[in-house]
Amino acid sequence: MQMEGHDKTSSQPVQLLLLRSQQDGKKQSCFSHLAGTFLRDIMLRIEGLIAAVFTPVKENGDLNLDIIDQYVNHLVSQGVLNVFICGSTGEGASFSLAERKQLTEKWVSAGSGKLQNVIVHVGGISIPDSQDLATHAESVGVQGISTLPTVVFKPKNASKVAEHLKMLYDAAPKTPLLYYHLPGYTGVDILIEDLVNAVEKLGVPTFSGVKFTGANLKDLRRSIRLFGDKYMFPYGCDEQMLCVLPLGCRSFIGSTYNYAGRLYNKLIEVYKNGDMEMALKLLDKSQSLVGVLFAHSFDAGINKQVMSLVSEIDMGPPRHPIVYRSEGEMKKVRQELEEAGFFNGIY
Amino acid sequence: MQMEGHDKTSSQPVQLLLLRSQQDGKKQSCFSHLAGTFLRDIMLRIEGLIAAVFTPVKENGDLNLDIIDQYVNHLVSQGVLNVFICGSTGEGASFSLAERKQLTEKWVSAGSGKLQNVIVHVGGISIPDSQDLATHAESVGVQGISTLPTVVFKPKNASKVAEHLKMLYDAAPKTPLLYYHLPGYTGVDILIEDLVNAVEKLGVPTFSGVKFTGANLKDLRRSIRLFGDKYMFPYGCDEQMLCVLPLGCRSFIGSTYNYAGRLYNKLIEVYKNGDMEMALKLLDKSQSLVGVLFAHSFDAGINKQVMSLVSEIDMGPPRHPIVYRSEGEMKKVRQELEEAGFFNGIY
Amino acid sequence: MQMEGHDKTSSQPVQLLLLRSQQDGKKQSCFSHLAGTFLRDIMLRIEGLIAAVFTPVKENGDLNLDIIDQYVNHLVSQGVLNVFICGSTGEGASFSLAERKQLTEKWVSAGSGKLQNVIVHVGGISIPDSQDLATHAESVGVQGISTLPTVVFKPKNASKVAEHLKMLYDAAPKTPLLYYHLPGYTGVDILIEDLVNAVEKLGVPTFSGVKFTGANLKDLRRSIRLFGDKYMFPYGCDEQMLCVLPLGCRSFIGSTYNYAGRLYNKLIEVYKNGDMEMALKLLDKSQSLVGVLFAHSFDAGINKQVMSLVSEIDMGPPRHPIVYRSEGEMKKVRQELEEAGFFNGIY
Amino acid sequence: MQMEGHDKTSSQPVQLLLLRSQQDGKKQSCFSHLAGTFLRDIMLRIEGLIAAVFTPVKENGDLNLDIIDQYVNHLVSQGVLNVFICGSTGEGASFSLAERKQLTEKWVSAGSGKLQNVIVHVGGISIPDSQDLATHAESVGVQGISTLPTVVFKPKNASKVAEHLKMLYDAAPKTPLLYYHLPGYTGVDILIEDLVNAVEKLGVPTFSGVKFTGANLKDLRRSIRLFGDKYMFPYGCDEQMLCVLPLGCRSFIGSTYNYAGRLYNKLIEVYKNGDMEMALKLLDKSQSLVGVLFAHSFDAGINKQVMSLVSEIDMGPPRHPIVYRSEGEMKKVRQELEEAGFFNGIY
Repeated sequence: MQMEGHDKTSSQPVQLLLLRSQQDGKKQSCFSHLAGTFLRDIMLRIEGLIAAVFTPVKENGDLNLDIIDQYVNHLVSQGVLNVFICGSTGEGASFSLAERKQLTEKWVSAGSGKLQNVIVHVGGISIPDSQDLATHAESVGVQGISTLPTVVFKPKNASKVAEHLKMLYDAAPKTPLLYYHLPGYTGVDILIEDLVNAVEKLGVPTFSGVKFTGANLKDLRRSIRLFGDKYMFPYGCDEQMLCVLPLGCRSFIGSTYNYAGRLYNKLIEVYKNGDMEMALKLLDKSQSLVGVLFAHSFDAGINKQVMSLVSEIDMGPPRHPIVYRSEGEMKKVRQELEEAGFFNGIY
Repeated sequence: MQMEGHDKTSSQPVQLLLLRSQQDGKKQSCFSHLAGTFLRDIMLRIEGLIAAVFTPVKENGDLNLDIIDQYVNHLVSQGVLNVFICGSTGEGASFSLAERKQLTEKWVSAGSGKLQNVIVHVGGISIPDSQDLATHAESVGVQGISTLPTVVFKPKNASKVAEHLKMLYDAAPKTPLLYYHLPGYTGVDILIEDLVNAVEKLGVPTFSGVKFTGANLKDLRRSIRLFGDKYMFPYGCDEQMLCVLPLGCRSFIGSTYNYAGRLYNKLIEVYKNGDMEMALKLLDKSQSLVGVLFAHSFDAGINKQVMSLVSEIDMGPPRHPIVYRSEGEMKKVRQELEEAGFFNGIY
Repeated sequence: MQMEGHDKTSSQPVQLLLLRSQQDGKKQSCFSHLAGTFLRDIMLRIEGLIAAVFTPVKENGDLNLDIIDQYVNHLVSQGVLNVFICGSTGEGASFSLAERKQLTEKWVSAGSGKLQNVIVHVGGISIPDSQDLATHAESVGVQGISTLPTVVFKPKNASKVAEHLKMLYDAAPKTPLLYYHLPGYTGVDILIEDLVNAVEKLGVPTFSGVKFTGANLKDLRRSIRLFGDKYMFPYGCDEQMLCVLPLGCRSFIGSTYNYAGRLYNKLIEVYKNGDMEMALKLLDKSQSLVGVLFAHSFDAGINKQVMSLVSEIDMGPPRHPIVYRSEGEMKKVRQELEEAGFFNGIY
Repeated sequence: MQMEGHDKTSSQPVQLLLLRSQQDGKKQSCFSHLAGTFLRDIMLRIEGLIAAVFTPVKENGDLNLDIIDQYVNHLVSQGVLNVFICGSTGEGASFSLAERKQLTEKWVSAGSGKLQNVIVHVGGISIPDSQDLATHAESVGVQGISTLPTVVFKPKNASKVAEHLKMLYDAAPKTPLLYYHLPGYTGVDILIEDLVNAVEKLGVPTFSGVKFTGANLKDLRRSIRLFGDKYMFPYGCDEQMLCVLPLGCRSFIGSTYNYAGRLYNKLIEVYKNGDMEMALKLLDKSQSLVGVLFAHSFDAGINKQVMSLVSEIDMGPPRHPIVYRSEGEMKKVRQELEEAGFFNGIY
């Protein structure tokens, strides 16, 4: 992967910090401290926002694939050019393997020529089924896959997790692979620094980094410092973005990028320009928005319904066991979002 | 203590307390306090031991289905006539949906005419995939299915769990259904008393009871007292069996019944005859055996390997991420089991 | 320690199973498997019920010591002759060191000639302060002391806990000492079997056993089997008493013995006589009572207020942060207790 | 990035951001967004580092008070002018109430004319004993007190915690009071935003802020944004300092400020000057140091021994149950710290 040749005259919207995957063969922009690093072809490098997308369904709960074309346009219009599908936001755990394959296919085709990277989470299920999803994902041309550790029988240490990643490499030997670090849910609280060392020892050619949704920011920083020139460490807590920008974190996977992408793209831009005051103002705004969601018992359901409300694309209800909020409650949510200034952005 | 009403002249091995499923159309023997209850045709009622069976694989990890015929004979020879497949002991979470279907088919065919009940755990995955397994299980003629609650998105209360059970009823409307209560793993710590009330309110015609692997024995007793004439509440902690026999618990699902079935059948028998001293002696023996396993970091792996050792049927290795113990360690385990008197039973 | 005047011709209710301490030099009644054991002079042996007593206060929260004489009579009238003070039920953690000393003194004097054993919990605070309480307790003549492990800095293993117990022995070298096993609160989840081994290795002459409030009943049984002839293992879950009687458990520390002592004494008696049916009936009754408390968000506060209601001795409010239930709520509680048959006992 | 309004002509060492307490009657320098706020006399406002100090003891474990004069000089020489005593680092939970009073007295007298603020943690014990410590602390002239919530009986919500704070106000009505937010230990996971609202509703005149040792940085930022002009929110994770500086966090309580105070003072200084690259370099250095401690099973013991090693003031051993590392291990630690460049600082 090549990092040279970054210029600002690219045809990308100026507010984007996004690095396109090497796979599309185009030139990339990147921060200086990453430049000059030799990266293998099968590696994923993304800067900027990656939307953890919702899974649109009809009122009866069936997939609503057709709407995804519109969804892609909505993202692109905000300068969000990368997606992470079938994760927690996408309720991946609530969809069948067949549905997850359909979603993968649709996102790849709908994103063609528009999105830069489609990453699909293939974990949270048995390893053989996960391998099957990985093989499928590779066959349809995703830019990356991602997996959680096994959680019924938990790996005892980083080496065991590395073995697991190797098994996914076996199933999809040409597709960049991210480890999904979510210790608050999985209970697998290894250090990412240890994981990368174990992966390098074992050899997992497609390993490309870690989606970091943990509280140990020291581990995040050490991983970036030691391995940031080789791997990506997208951070998973949207409303704490400003806490990790100073640590050198350059990519972000989150759900609010679906409908507040401009705000966060702006935040990254002003941060890069050294305008900390504006960066904090934008963070505060993002926290006000999220505050509304938390006041309504934040979960993947209210989040999905806010997406429908904001994007005017009907995402449909969440699946069991998540509660579908009433029209009355959503009216109140809209009002509170308005009061929080969501619809007349400073960004 | 009297357990009158248990038919000792039955043609079943005398140590069995097993109740055949209503489905085979035969008369049931049961404890007096259960007698006279009207049971629907689709309901499961079992007394005695249900082995949570291991999943035999070849050295390369592929299913070893052929060996299951031999496995069935091994169980029957101990008076164990019921199996629970694809649970934790069976590493269900490590096998693909296709493999779980193959296992279901094989256990049903191998058990035909020998086993009384084959129950298959179809949970721990997305609900649509779980429904697919349930429909399949019904089509091949299992006696029961079982499910965990969803764990990525957790149900907020008993009513939500009841809704989930209803969805499995929809998929397998003729197959008795057990809820698998395992709060230590799932984090879903509802009261079973509340669940049964919610199920009865909602209406889930196939609901047959709860596999109870929790520490709240008050909840277990209340459930048995209030609903024990309608539903079964098999207990899941083998080595604490004597703690719940006085609570009226009459069925047991566990892994050690695979290789210590005679001991536990004997324990139940002497308990019924009021011989508490011998019952305690047998419990102590079971705890000594289990003590050996715990001294070797008990998990589904060491358990599976002890099964191979005792039954002389090669179960193969555990799947990732469980560690496969070395031959050296297993020699030590054998020696310790011998010292614990496992191979010259008092039973 | 005074045990005078208790014998089987005494006016005590016949249903008592209480074992007097070895210290009074008299013969013990005990279950056969315990007989003939050599017991050191400083050791505590109790059979039967030990009430974890409430701490009576005035409306303003100050200690109400005077009422404790009446409290003692209330216990004795139920055949409850042992108390455990300043534990969770007694809100020990909410009282100052000075208050805990006052309570200890009062219980010893009020219990003189009436109670058999006063055990005081001196833990849950810094070790030097705990040693101070222990020394004080010894000086005023309690029959036993008890301690939790340290919880801010947690002991890493059983040996560390044994060291802690040794430090209390140093402070009170003539007073029997119990370890308070409460892993659900402390997070110190050692095996009691390991602890006793560590204690015996280190040498803690006053060690007398373990108040067992854990869910690992296998560990409880193994401890009783291996060490039950030397130490006591009082069980802490009142409403599961019938689960541990078959394990050889013979002593019980709990809060409901304050107001349902007769019921539990009866339960023990009928169990010893082999009447399992009646034992279960009594357990069910106890669970119905406890059920009322749980329906009102069980905590040390509602429990204390039920004690006032039943005993007609005013225990006063709980201390911060426990909520003081309103008169209205308590009227409802009384009604529900009546409906549960609490006031016209079958015992 | 601009931090205008900070008085660089002050007589304080240039690297200090410290705000002296209002109590000394002098003028304060502060960041512009804090300026102009009316501050009550009893309120504490500190900027910069607050060392959570160790408790020096002799080899036999007795307090070693004499050494504290030297300790103060060591802190001042690093530009650390505030201390937090009897917290986790100071093993407060391992010392008696009498010892905690002695420590308070000694720190106040030793710090007189040298330290700006002595804050003493008076919590983690019963409220009446805590009130006694608070009254004592006020009588000897500390600048602030701090308390954890009650943990045996946990407060159900922020209002209950506010009530608790009010009780400490009652005991020390002239001493600024901090709430110690440590949900990872206490399990009391309220939002600080909610707490401040509850405190303001109830009225706790001495309330001065929250020692924030939690992972919810969104809550930290919201608290600073909404209440930062009135209260202080010192952050408790030293090695993540750079994550919260952008959030407006201006005070820090931590253990490594005892021996790496210069490094962190420098970090704050360069951050204020907008030199993010150097700030990150300094953070990396701090993480390397902490990395050595974690490689030796970080706890208050290894930390205390590193303090002895670096300061050449003998802190003595940790108290039970914390393990005292051997001389051999400490030699290794010294070597690793040297390799990490600790003794030839870039700061």
